[in-house]
Amino acid sequence: MTAEFATPYRRASRIPAEPGKPYFIEKGEGDRAHLFGDLFTIYAGGEQTEGTFNFFTCEGPKGDIIPAHLHPDTYEVFYVTAGAVRLFVEDTEGNQQEKLLTPGDFGFVPKNCPHAYQMERHHSMVVGVAAGPGGTFERFFENLGVPAEELGLPKVPAVPEPHKFGTVPQRYDVKFLPEHRWHTTP
Amino acid sequence: MTAEFATPYRRASRIPAEPGKPYFIEKGEGDRAHLFGDLFTIYAGGEQTEGTFNFFTCEGPKGDIIPAHLHPDTYEVFYVTAGAVRLFVEDTEGNQQEKLLTPGDFGFVPKNCPHAYQMERHHSMVVGVAAGPGGTFERFFENLGVPAEELGLPKVPAVPEPHKFGTVPQRYDVKFLPEHRWHTTP
Repeated sequence: MTAEFATPYRRASRIPAEPGKPYFIEKGEGDRAHLFGDLFTIYAGGEQTEGTFNFFTCEGPKGDIIPAHLHPDTYEVFYVTAGAVRLFVEDTEGNQQEKLLTPGDFGFVPKNCPHAYQMERHHSMVVGVAAGPGGTFERFFENLGVPAEELGLPKVPAVPEPHKFGTVPQRYDVKFLPEHRWHTTP
Repeated sequence: MTAEFATPYRRASRIPAEPGKPYFIEKGEGDRAHLFGDLFTIYAGGEQTEGTFNFFTCEGPKGDIIPAHLHPDTYEVFYVTAGAVRLFVEDTEGNQQEKLLTPGDFGFVPKNCPHAYQMERHHSMVVGVAAGPGGTFERFFENLGVPAEELGLPKVPAVPEPHKFGTVPQRYDVKFLPEHRWHTTP
């Protein structure tokens, strides 16, 4: 059975509008968003868990490091299931680490820790959970980027209009750090 | 850098004892536990997330369906990364569903929904998040089963002593349903 639901986020979603319902979603059929060259797919949001946690994936091509940022009230998991993803993270005392994660490897980024990542192989995929006592932020990606109907990676990069950087990140507990520099060595 | 830490749960763990620290764990090196024929590996627990969520994997051989159970205060994610896992779930009105999940497929089990699963291929692996407003229950597996030092699947099944079923499940928000029957058809 493959049901579709109208929700506050999508005309047709695999995620039931009403919380408390069990459901299944086949690979790639969650709520999709494009942000730059990456595809974010939400399989569960805060509505499903009384605001406790979410569950999403991020897929992308080999590319540049993303902008450094932190989440004041959100803990974040990076669990790689395909390709290779280099995760950069700084603790609250300023100590920096980086590590190349391959399938089955895990990285944990606590709240207030600057971080960034770089996909080092095409078709990399990361499973993410991003949540904290204040809630979950899974709709950040489609608000800074754009919701997507089609399956697969963006055919052209979804580059946010500049004004969005002034309003969207703070609504989703995201703080970009344009002055931040990584001085780790692999 | 591969650090090991003494924690309340392990003499040597890849999970830092002190919350708020970023960390990496390579595939298979989280806190391991054996329960029957399966290997559970914790990559993050409630201590890491202010009690918001956890992150673990379950690997197992092709086998029987596990006993039906529910969690009164816990939402649970099943995200398959290897093999094939049939997930059975009943909603709070008694409607049952089942679906064979293959890599990249997702199943969501809300609190109070009876559920069970069956690994239908050897070397199946499921990523799990199990948490709710009341906290997380990732130490259930090593308390009903046993903590493991070695890597890989149990060489002999870790069958719990019968008395443990009377005390451990309720401490971790697990309620077994011995009378429950599945009448779904694939």
